[in-house]
Amino acid sequence: MSAVTPAEVLAGQPGTPPLTAFAHIYPTAIAHNLRHMRRLAVGEGHQTPRMWAVVKADAYGHSLVHALAGLDEADGLAVLALSDAHQLRAMGWHKPILVMSPRLSAKDLRDPILFPLHLIIDSEEQLTQLQGLNGTLPPHIWLRHSGQLHHAGFSGNDYLHAYRRLQALWLAGRVAAVGHLSHYAAAEEARNLRAEREALRDAIAGLPGALCTENSAALLSAPGYARTTDWVRCGIALYGISPLPGADGTALGLRPAMTLQAPIYGEQLLRAGCRLGYGGGFLAPCDMRVGLVRCGYADGYPRHIADDARVLVNGRKSRIIGRVSMDTLTIDLTGHPQAATGTLVTLWGQDDLSIERLARSAGTIAAQLCTGLTARVPRLPARQYAALAPTPEKPA
Amino acid sequence: MSAVTPAEVLAGQPGTPPLTAFAHIYPTAIAHNLRHMRRLAVGEGHQTPRMWAVVKADAYGHSLVHALAGLDEADGLAVLALSDAHQLRAMGWHKPILVMSPRLSAKDLRDPILFPLHLIIDSEEQLTQLQGLNGTLPPHIWLRHSGQLHHAGFSGNDYLHAYRRLQALWLAGRVAAVGHLSHYAAAEEARNLRAEREALRDAIAGLPGALCTENSAALLSAPGYARTTDWVRCGIALYGISPLPGADGTALGLRPAMTLQAPIYGEQLLRAGCRLGYGGGFLAPCDMRVGLVRCGYADGYPRHIADDARVLVNGRKSRIIGRVSMDTLTIDLTGHPQAATGTLVTLWGQDDLSIERLARSAGTIAAQLCTGLTARVPRLPARQYAALAPTPEKPA
Repeated sequence: MSAVTPAEVLAGQPGTPPLTAFAHIYPTAIAHNLRHMRRLAVGEGHQTPRMWAVVKADAYGHSLVHALAGLDEADGLAVLALSDAHQLRAMGWHKPILVMSPRLSAKDLRDPILFPLHLIIDSEEQLTQLQGLNGTLPPHIWLRHSGQLHHAGFSGNDYLHAYRRLQALWLAGRVAAVGHLSHYAAAEEARNLRAEREALRDAIAGLPGALCTENSAALLSAPGYARTTDWVRCGIALYGISPLPGADGTALGLRPAMTLQAPIYGEQLLRAGCRLGYGGGFLAPCDMRVGLVRCGYADGYPRHIADDARVLVNGRKSRIIGRVSMDTLTIDLTGHPQAATGTLVTLWGQDDLSIERLARSAGTIAAQLCTGLTARVPRLPARQYAALAPTPEKPA
Repeated sequence: MSAVTPAEVLAGQPGTPPLTAFAHIYPTAIAHNLRHMRRLAVGEGHQTPRMWAVVKADAYGHSLVHALAGLDEADGLAVLALSDAHQLRAMGWHKPILVMSPRLSAKDLRDPILFPLHLIIDSEEQLTQLQGLNGTLPPHIWLRHSGQLHHAGFSGNDYLHAYRRLQALWLAGRVAAVGHLSHYAAAEEARNLRAEREALRDAIAGLPGALCTENSAALLSAPGYARTTDWVRCGIALYGISPLPGADGTALGLRPAMTLQAPIYGEQLLRAGCRLGYGGGFLAPCDMRVGLVRCGYADGYPRHIADDARVLVNGRKSRIIGRVSMDTLTIDLTGHPQAATGTLVTLWGQDDLSIERLARSAGTIAAQLCTGLTARVPRLPARQYAALAPTPEKPA
């Protein structure tokens, strides 16, 4: 249930294993990834772009509070809504905040605590709202080019027209600056990335203003371009996850910021010829020991996975057998005689069991897995994990 | 972000549309479904089985607090853990609670507030724990037969042995009763259901004790058997969702208990030949008006859907085009000239846009969709919805 808190999970006698699936979050990995991405963005003798750390979707499912502990060195944080910006200020963040999809209100724009405040303007309605607000503090404005993605923003003459209106607000002292922002539709494909960059250059030719264009995928696949931009936005890579298909984050120099684990809560002896799970999807070819793991699709674990989907039991590979159910997944304990009730099973984010690998097994992307974890999965900072006693094992 | 509360979503001027995806919950539908399932379970002149309403996974994603408002007539509530039972008592539930996967503690079993308390015993470890506890109040015990599902429980001689140990505890006054419980692996298939029922009958032949066997699928596909059981467990059907493949809940006399909606936050004019979304997955065959909807896979909406996936705009059908992203899905507004920023789009749970239909489009089951909604999707009780002003529309 959503009311389970980290404290409850870890309650009880010292060494009591958690009762639920839970995610360890590693702020030091996030800090490492931030520095790594910054190095990619900076070339010798070139200007140093500043970096927005994107923390929307509760820091991509890692929880804002734990992610923040690794983001001290970010130049600013990017969120979706003005209410998120208030939350960040309440958590002590004092550097710039970029609100990516704001609904503007005079109350917010008069509130000094939100400043330095950057806003993405991507629609006619926002422009009109902004012009109509009086007595507000001047935000930095990023005008969004719709590009090939076409998720909000302006293009062609509409872009020029919107820029002129914002420029007039700037001349009137109503906004602090007007910059250009775009969001790539397919930064992981080199040829497409070049085309998207050229389209933006054409759209803003001759218009003054800072640039904010590069994202994780662009920085990792073609970092040189970042030197011509003023701000880069980094999301998925901060969490150690590769935005490039086929590559894991670790192969790109990143460190995973989340490990998902769940305890074994029981076991079953499955006789040869017996079936397992809903729909009887698995048929035991021989007598097998099956571990019942407290994680299911109601935690956000994918319900459909390929036969190559793996888990780690005490650091060694095992496999999921039978259908993933709401609260349980079942694993093959053949070759794991020491696994017992309470043994923690790693579901992703450790050794070669990357979240990217599981995402491929599930026919999706890693971002869906980490942002899809539900409220009943506690996110625990790594230091709390270190305080746990070793995973209990049966005597050998 | 997870910190968004229903109050915040509905904050602002009267009639201000929500800024996020949100789910309306209908307690009256849940109450209707409970009565409907009870009628199925009761035949004239037969004994009347009592009904557990299963509210694990935060009432299948509907939120415990709103679901409870529709469950007054349930005979008991079923949850996963003892911590959930404490939560139910704190919310004022005073009738029996069934804990389906308890880790036993003397502290809990001495706490009178948890009683009447029913516990499922499904492992050797739990049995040993139960025997070792002293000075506890006597819970009702349901011994779980592992059946074909093999998610915990006993079979064969192990079942008999476990039953004898529990019977000894009952004779000593340590437990209030010992009953038999099973969980079907494929209740939706008539032949399989008969086989599973027979296997249980064989396993418990000659052993006294009440029976708790039937679930939503069994009640809906072959209700007659419920008359021979003492308690039935009803989960998915309470929420108006069909457990039978191919059928929608409404065709079975159920009413959907959740409507998922999200606002349009902007629009785009997509020129013929232009692409839309990540990876450029959609190519416009003609000039098109595209609505940007504030719901994505980070809300729990499925990332992969078939081309037949639909949405409703002001009650009329539209379709999703382009790839579902983390925070946005894009819809075709052709034929919807009155849709504008702020218009609420229905994603499932209204008219013929059932959650079962979307699940089929996404290659999954409805239970995954409702339990997979993430923390940032507020669940609003229907009465709060009624207070919202009508969806804003452009002047015709």
